Amino acid sequence: MNPQNPAQIVSGRVGMVGAGQLARMTQQAAIGLGVELTVLAESKTDPAVLAGARFEQGTPAEIEDLRRLASLVDVVTFDHEQVDPDWLAELEAEGVNLAPSASAKLHAQDKLHARRALASHGFPIPDFAEGSTIAEFDQFAAVHGWPVVAKAPRGGYDGRGVWMLEDRDQARELLATAPGPFLLEAMLQIEKEIAVMVARSSGGELAVYPVVETVQREAMCREVIAPAAIPERSAAAAARMATDIAGRIGLVGVMAVELFITEGGLLVNELALRPHNSGHYSIEGCVTSQFEQHLRAVLDLPLGETSLTAPSVVTVNVVGGNSGDGPESRLGDALAVPGAHIHLYGKQTRPGRKLGHVTVCGQDADATAKAARAAASALERGSS
Amino acid sequence: MNPQNPAQIVSGRVGMVGAGQLARMTQQAAIGLGVELTVLAESKTDPAVLAGARFEQGTPAEIEDLRRLASLVDVVTFDHEQVDPDWLAELEAEGVNLAPSASAKLHAQDKLHARRALASHGFPIPDFAEGSTIAEFDQFAAVHGWPVVAKAPRGGYDGRGVWMLEDRDQARELLATAPGPFLLEAMLQIEKEIAVMVARSSGGELAVYPVVETVQREAMCREVIAPAAIPERSAAAAARMATDIAGRIGLVGVMAVELFITEGGLLVNELALRPHNSGHYSIEGCVTSQFEQHLRAVLDLPLGETSLTAPSVVTVNVVGGNSGDGPESRLGDALAVPGAHIHLYGKQTRPGRKLGHVTVCGQDADATAKAARAAASALERGSS
Repeated sequence: MNPQNPAQIVSGRVGMVGAGQLARMTQQAAIGLGVELTVLAESKTDPAVLAGARFEQGTPAEIEDLRRLASLVDVVTFDHEQVDPDWLAELEAEGVNLAPSASAKLHAQDKLHARRALASHGFPIPDFAEGSTIAEFDQFAAVHGWPVVAKAPRGGYDGRGVWMLEDRDQARELLATAPGPFLLEAMLQIEKEIAVMVARSSGGELAVYPVVETVQREAMCREVIAPAAIPERSAAAAARMATDIAGRIGLVGVMAVELFITEGGLLVNELALRPHNSGHYSIEGCVTSQFEQHLRAVLDLPLGETSLTAPSVVTVNVVGGNSGDGPESRLGDALAVPGAHIHLYGKQTRPGRKLGHVTVCGQDADATAKAARAAASALERGSS
Repeated sequence: MNPQNPAQIVSGRVGMVGAGQLARMTQQAAIGLGVELTVLAESKTDPAVLAGARFEQGTPAEIEDLRRLASLVDVVTFDHEQVDPDWLAELEAEGVNLAPSASAKLHAQDKLHARRALASHGFPIPDFAEGSTIAEFDQFAAVHGWPVVAKAPRGGYDGRGVWMLEDRDQARELLATAPGPFLLEAMLQIEKEIAVMVARSSGGELAVYPVVETVQREAMCREVIAPAAIPERSAAAAARMATDIAGRIGLVGVMAVELFITEGGLLVNELALRPHNSGHYSIEGCVTSQFEQHLRAVLDLPLGETSLTAPSVVTVNVVGGNSGDGPESRLGDALAVPGAHIHLYGKQTRPGRKLGHVTVCGQDADATAKAARAAASALERGSS
């Protein structure tokens, strides 16, 4: 029982590490189910706190703060990956109910770990190597040629922690500034990037969402198109991989599986063990949103239907520009676009920052995308 | 600027008098739009406060509390009708932006006022009279016969404030306990009860929702079936009446117009100038929910599309029984019903109290209703 409010009638108490837009939208879903969501927030102006989630002020960089959150709730989950894996294992040893578990979550926290695990289970992944020395970089380049892509195994997102190395001089330079190890990859010829959201409850029930296309610009996902315009066979294979991975790693909650379509076939790129930008379309576009599904899964409630509510669903992110007003000042322009579902995150505008998103559901893929882009660009117009 | 939290980035500040389930679901919609909702709540355990709306503790029975709410927001609106109309006029005279206005709101607060206004504008309504003396009751009964239905013009809801008088002895008895005046009506032969939600922004933009059938049991709405299975001509007439009334009374916000279908045609029964139980289906069942539409209207933002998202949408209320656990203890059973969208209000269970609702969207009216009833009855099973 939460001592702050003993009279509350709730269906379950969920703690979430992080209080960004994913926690904010989880709060919206929690209201309907009567679930009490408590977020670990660094600030009272974090998006989920502004949306009215209960909060414990604290940081995932302090294990005591994580412990305090855990003491208030039935299950602890995450709106990001930035938590020390060793601490998660420690909390679990103390009896904290983590969803996903520390060992499952590691597949989203450590890219090298994820690649090795996926490879060992036989999932198709891009060629990779671990590189900590210039000799290892040279060895990889000898097979795959320059440029080599080096990724920090931990901590990167939206293009951060990724280096495109044109030659061994740049590799030396990187090694001089950071110790490694790095995940080394070749430049891939990617035809399309796709993603699949899958949910698994602690009881083992599985639910997989439609396969979507993700359109990236400047290393950030800008558009999500559901369903992906790809052959049925590829979509079925991607969905099967997602559910297989969920079972293999013992997922609890939702997980986004990001894949590349290449000439050689499907390759699994990354896993995110939490609600994900590529699943925002599901709020209006699927019978059960990824946020409600995540709550159902971590509370071991029956999972919901994942089918699309319309033939075409498109989500476009709203990203901050270099100057100007935030998107809230242009809300009216965006709402004038017929069918535009607007989601603002209550964040201060900053260049390259995701400030919100727009989803449109429609009959025709082109018209739907056009409407979603129109509303998103109206919201972005204040900042340029 | 709200002094509690100067750093918040918001699209608009809306105050709501009342903090029940309507305010709770308005809070869900406010999160998406980046609107800051502040409710006037009597208790920290009111449904909207539990959902995380900002709140001012207070009661609509104190004009100072209403003033304090008004001082924090751009516009004041309502989740119920129980506010003194004279105070609303006073606040308006002081410069408070009420949506709807005091004079419009009166049509939902005073049944006699509403009937007279609707009659004077030529809308079809049930025969009625004002009755304060036994002579006036006798006069009405002489034309329409006994029983006579007497209604308190102000303060009643869900069957409260309504008396079925079998004869003049019962009329005398009522007059001895309460001074009147009463709204007197004959027993009507009602074929169907229907409702139409309409929205009007302060700029005059109008949006009307599909006509729904409302199924009452024990004077409480139990089911809402969208669209109503009635002739197209009747639906069009009802929608036209709703928009005409909205314009006539200068509505700002959403309004539910409740109508009877009788042998003699459509009759307008009551108006509710706020989000309404008969519009809950719109959360999943329409492109724009009544709650988002209400926020758009009171902030003079463009109104959203009102079309159905599926051929059939059915909402069933979850009502407390005489004993037992609350519905939150049966959440899993209800979520096991495919396609069931559950909304729990976080209220203590009490006999006859609305504790939540379930909506299902489907292809076929019978199957959709069956699924919604199954999920609602699973939630009610804990209390009997």
